[in-house]
Amino acid sequence: MADAAAPAPPTAELAAASISSPPPSSDLEPPTTRTRIRAILDAGDSLAGQSVVVGGWVKTGRQQGKGDFAFLEVNDGSCQGNLQVMVDKEVYPLARLTHTGTSVLVEGLLQKPPVEAKQRIELKVKKVIEVGEVDAAAYPLPKTKLNLETLRDFVHLRARTNTIGAVARIRHQLAYATHTFFDKEDFLYIHTPIITTSDCEGAGEMFQVTSLFSQAEKVDKELKENPAPSEADIEAAKLVVKAKGDAVAQLKAAKASKQEITAAVSELTKAKEAVLRLEERSKLKPGIPHRDDGSIAFENDFFKRAAFLTVSGQLQVETYACALSSVYTFGPTFRAENSHTSRHLAEFWMVEPEIAYANLHDDMNYAERYVKYLCKWLLDHCREDMEFMVKHVDKTAIERLELVSSTPFERISYTKAVEILEGTGKKFENKVEWGIDLASEHERYLTEVIFKKPVIVYNYPKGIKAFYMRLNDDQKTVAAMDVLVPKVGELIGGSQREERLNVLTQRILDADLPLEPYEWYLDLRRFGSVKHSGFGLGFERMILFATGLDNIRDVIPFPRYPGRADL
Amino acid sequence: MADAAAPAPPTAELAAASISSPPPSSDLEPPTTRTRIRAILDAGDSLAGQSVVVGGWVKTGRQQGKGDFAFLEVNDGSCQGNLQVMVDKEVYPLARLTHTGTSVLVEGLLQKPPVEAKQRIELKVKKVIEVGEVDAAAYPLPKTKLNLETLRDFVHLRARTNTIGAVARIRHQLAYATHTFFDKEDFLYIHTPIITTSDCEGAGEMFQVTSLFSQAEKVDKELKENPAPSEADIEAAKLVVKAKGDAVAQLKAAKASKQEITAAVSELTKAKEAVLRLEERSKLKPGIPHRDDGSIAFENDFFKRAAFLTVSGQLQVETYACALSSVYTFGPTFRAENSHTSRHLAEFWMVEPEIAYANLHDDMNYAERYVKYLCKWLLDHCREDMEFMVKHVDKTAIERLELVSSTPFERISYTKAVEILEGTGKKFENKVEWGIDLASEHERYLTEVIFKKPVIVYNYPKGIKAFYMRLNDDQKTVAAMDVLVPKVGELIGGSQREERLNVLTQRILDADLPLEPYEWYLDLRRFGSVKHSGFGLGFERMILFATGLDNIRDVIPFPRYPGRADL
Repeated sequence: MADAAAPAPPTAELAAASISSPPPSSDLEPPTTRTRIRAILDAGDSLAGQSVVVGGWVKTGRQQGKGDFAFLEVNDGSCQGNLQVMVDKEVYPLARLTHTGTSVLVEGLLQKPPVEAKQRIELKVKKVIEVGEVDAAAYPLPKTKLNLETLRDFVHLRARTNTIGAVARIRHQLAYATHTFFDKEDFLYIHTPIITTSDCEGAGEMFQVTSLFSQAEKVDKELKENPAPSEADIEAAKLVVKAKGDAVAQLKAAKASKQEITAAVSELTKAKEAVLRLEERSKLKPGIPHRDDGSIAFENDFFKRAAFLTVSGQLQVETYACALSSVYTFGPTFRAENSHTSRHLAEFWMVEPEIAYANLHDDMNYAERYVKYLCKWLLDHCREDMEFMVKHVDKTAIERLELVSSTPFERISYTKAVEILEGTGKKFENKVEWGIDLASEHERYLTEVIFKKPVIVYNYPKGIKAFYMRLNDDQKTVAAMDVLVPKVGELIGGSQREERLNVLTQRILDADLPLEPYEWYLDLRRFGSVKHSGFGLGFERMILFATGLDNIRDVIPFPRYPGRADL
Repeated sequence: MADAAAPAPPTAELAAASISSPPPSSDLEPPTTRTRIRAILDAGDSLAGQSVVVGGWVKTGRQQGKGDFAFLEVNDGSCQGNLQVMVDKEVYPLARLTHTGTSVLVEGLLQKPPVEAKQRIELKVKKVIEVGEVDAAAYPLPKTKLNLETLRDFVHLRARTNTIGAVARIRHQLAYATHTFFDKEDFLYIHTPIITTSDCEGAGEMFQVTSLFSQAEKVDKELKENPAPSEADIEAAKLVVKAKGDAVAQLKAAKASKQEITAAVSELTKAKEAVLRLEERSKLKPGIPHRDDGSIAFENDFFKRAAFLTVSGQLQVETYACALSSVYTFGPTFRAENSHTSRHLAEFWMVEPEIAYANLHDDMNYAERYVKYLCKWLLDHCREDMEFMVKHVDKTAIERLELVSSTPFERISYTKAVEILEGTGKKFENKVEWGIDLASEHERYLTEVIFKKPVIVYNYPKGIKAFYMRLNDDQKTVAAMDVLVPKVGELIGGSQREERLNVLTQRILDADLPLEPYEWYLDLRRFGSVKHSGFGLGFERMILFATGLDNIRDVIPFPRYPGRADL
C-alpha cells in the first residue's frame, strides 16, 4: 500500500481524513494517509503546491499529447465531483489507467490547472502506488449512460454510477439527520425486534422465520446415512437386554465373583441404553414435523412457535414510550405482498417515533417539524447531489425541498378533504365519498393541485383505520393523520393511540381479533396508562420525495421484491 | 390533555422540549407543552418560581402530614433522576396518585424544597391534568427490587425499572455516538439487506425466510372449502364440452340462425373454460410444495429461491466500499444457533465499517479510535447512568471506560500472544498452542491479567479464519485482527480483505465452497479491485462492556433466544 515515506497530511483540515495512531508495529505495513477528494475540492486552489495521496475509481480517462500524458477523472465517493488527475507516461503505463472503473491510489502534487479549465485544482501524479485494472470489454458498466432498470441487475456494481452514488449520500444524510433530530428532541432510539410473534395490525402478509427446513434437512440426511430402526430392530435389541439380564441373574445365582457380576451388569446397562437410543431414533420422521391434525408443528421450531418478520415496530416501541416517554425506532420492516409496483418493496426501512403525553395535535407538530428538518438538512448538506438530481432526474427537486422546509403545512380534516375533492367536480378513477380510504390520486391532487404544498389530513373514518387509533368523541372517526406531500402523496401516517382500556378492548374485538395476543398491549393501558401518539415515515418514500426518482428499487441499496433478493 | 391555558415554557432552554406549531385547528385539542424532567434537574434551583407541565410515572409515592399532602418521585425517562412532586389533598385524591407505576401529567410551580433536602428543586402541583392509575395488587413490578431474570418475563414493562431505563439511555447514546463518529469520518451509512440469498462465511446456522407455510395454509383452506376435482369430475366436464360441441355442429348443419349458433358457441366456450379451471385446480396439492426428488420446491417461494436472515452485512457492504470508499452498516444480524448462554442472542445488532485503500494497520487504527470515541462519549453524555451502574452493577464500570478511552491499545501478533500465554505456565481449560482459536479465557487473560488494557491481536492462522481474509506473505497467517477488552474479551473482529482475484478464488475453493454464489464478490476483484479492510463490533457486547451487566438478554430491548420471542 502506501510506502513508509507517505507524505504528512498537508493541512490540519485535511488531516481529518487520516487517523492518528501509535508508532507502527514493525511487522505491519504502515497505515495509509489518504486525503478525501471532497476535502480537496472544497478547499480548491488554496491547496496548490501541497502533496497528497488520493484513492478512487476512474470515471473517465483519456490520453493526450500524442500519448505523452493522461487525464483521469477520479471519484472516491466522498462527493459527486471528480478530481482531475494528470499522469505522465514516464510515471506509469497510461493504457492501464484510463479505462472506466480502474481504481488508483496515487501520490502527487496539487496544482492549479496549467490552462484555464473548469477545475480549480488538479493532481499531478508523482507516483502510482496501486492500480486495480479493468478489462474494459468485460466490465458491465461502460462509460455510456445506463438506465436504472438495467443497473438493477448489477446491484454489486451500481454504486459506482453517479446516480446511485448520489442516492447513497442522500440516504446517509437523511439517516443521520433523523438520528440528530430525535436526539436533540430528547428521544431515545429503541431497537424494536425484527423477529416477532406479534402482528401489528392483524393484517398484511408476513414472512415467516423458521429453522424447520434446515432441521428437516438434517434429519433427512441423518436418516439417509443411518435409517431409522424398524420394530424388529428394537425387538432384537430387547432380546439382547433379556439375555444380558439372564446372564446377570445366573452369575448372581452361581455366586460368581464381584468382578464378573459387575462386568455383566455393565453389559446389561449398555444393552438397555442401546434400546433407548433405538426407540428415540425410531421416532425420527423425515420432512417437516406435523401435528396429528395435519398442521405444521411449529412448537418444534426455533422459538417453539410460529415467528415472523416485523411489519412495524410501533406496538413494541409503545412499551418504551409508556416508560421513557419519547422514543423512536428506525429499522427494517417487511411485507410478503406480491406487489410488482414501483412503490413497494418486500424489505424497507421505517422511522417510527412514539411520544407519551402527546395528542394528535402534538403528533402533527412533530411530524411537520421532522419533515422540514430533513428537507432543510438536505439543502444544507447535499447541495451538490441535489443539483445533480435537478440536472438529471427532476428539475423541481430543490424547489420542492425549499417549499416544504419553509411553508406551514395545510391541515384539514378528512371530512373537509372529501368535501374539497367532491367540490372539484373532477372525475377520479376511484370515486370520492365519505368513508373511502383516500387513493394516491386523491392525495396527490390535494397536495399538488389544490394546496400546492404539504397537507395533513386528520380524523379519518374508524372503519378504514387500525384498531389502536384513538376513537374520537363523534364515535365515527379516529384520531389519525396522514402527511401528504407533492410527488409521492402519503409520506407519513400516524395517530393518537387508544389509551382507554375498555375502548381498546372493544376495538380489538370489533376488529375480529383475539384478545390473548394483545394482553401485553392492554397491560400498557392497565398500569399507568398515558395518552400517547406516534407516526411512521417510510424512509424510501422520503428519498423518492427528495430525489424525484420514480422507482423505489433505486433508492435502497439491495432491493427485495417478488422473485428478487440478489446477494 | 393540557388545557388551552397551558403555561408558556419558562425559559428558552426548556422550550426545546415543547415544539413550535401553527395556530391550533379549532377541531383539535391544543398541543401539550411538557417540560422534560432532565431539563428541570439540570437547571436546578435557578428555575424556582417558574410554572411548568410535567408528565411521568411515579417511582415511589407517600402520603405525609396525616394525609394532608403527598410526595411523588416522578420519572419521565429523560434521565435517571426523579423530580419530587408535592400534591395537596385539596388538589387531587392522594390515594390515587401514590402507587408505583401510576402515570401523572401535572401542572405546577417549581420551588426550592421548604426543608433542606437532597433535592435542589421540587414541583408544587396546582393542577392534576391526567392520571393513569395502577391496581397495585395486580401490577407485576412492585416497588421492591426485582432481579433481571424475573424482569425478562415482562419485557413490555421492564423499561420502567431503573436498570433497564439506564440501559436504554446508554444504548441510545452508543448508537448516536456510532453514527456521529462515522459521519465525522466521512463514512456513508449503508443499509445492507436483512433478507439475503448469500451466506457470509459458508458457516453458521441461518434462519430461513419463507412464505411457503402461509401459501400452503391458503391452498389447504381453499381445498377444504372446495375440494380438488376428481378425474371423474374432469371427465364429466369434458363430456359437457363434447355435448356442447355436438350441439354447435348440429345447429350449423341445420343452418340455424346466427343468433342461435352464437349462443351455442358461447356455451361451448364456457364449458371448455370450466374444464381448464378444473384441470388447473386438480393440480393443487395440500401442504408444502415438493419437487419430484422429495426436496422442498423453494422455486415456489416468495423470492423464487431459498432466502435467509443475514448473519453479517460485510460482504454486501464491501460492494459499496469498492465504489464509495468509506462506508459502514449498522443493523440487525441473526444466528439460529441453539445457544442458551448469557453471551448469545438469535437477533443482535452489529456495526460493520468497511474502508477502501485501508490495510490492516489502518483497520486497527480505526477500531481503536472508534472504541475510544464510544467510551469518551459515554463519560461525557451518560455520567449519571454510569454512576448508577457503578453503584448497582459493577463498581469498576467508569474506571474501565476511562482506562480504555485514554490508554493506547497493546498490539501483538497472534504468534506472540500464544508465546505469552504459553509462557505464563497457567493451566487453561483449553490448551494453548499455535493454531488454536483463542478461547474467551485466553482473551480475557491477555487483556485483564497480562496487559491490563485493551489488546489487539493480529495475523491469525489462516486455518481458523474466514476465506475472505487477506493471506499474508508467510502463507500461514491472514491479516485478521481482534480487539480484546476487559470484562467481555473479544469486542471487535476485523481483517484486511483478500483483494487478489486469483488468491481469493483459491481460498474459496480451499474452503470447499462453490464459486458460483460468490461470482458477484469476485467481480469486485475483477473490476478495479482495491485493498480494503473492515471490522465488526457486536453492539450488545459493547453495552455489556460499558455497563458491566452480565447477561446479553438485558441489554437489548426485546431479546430473542431459543424458545423465546416475546411480543
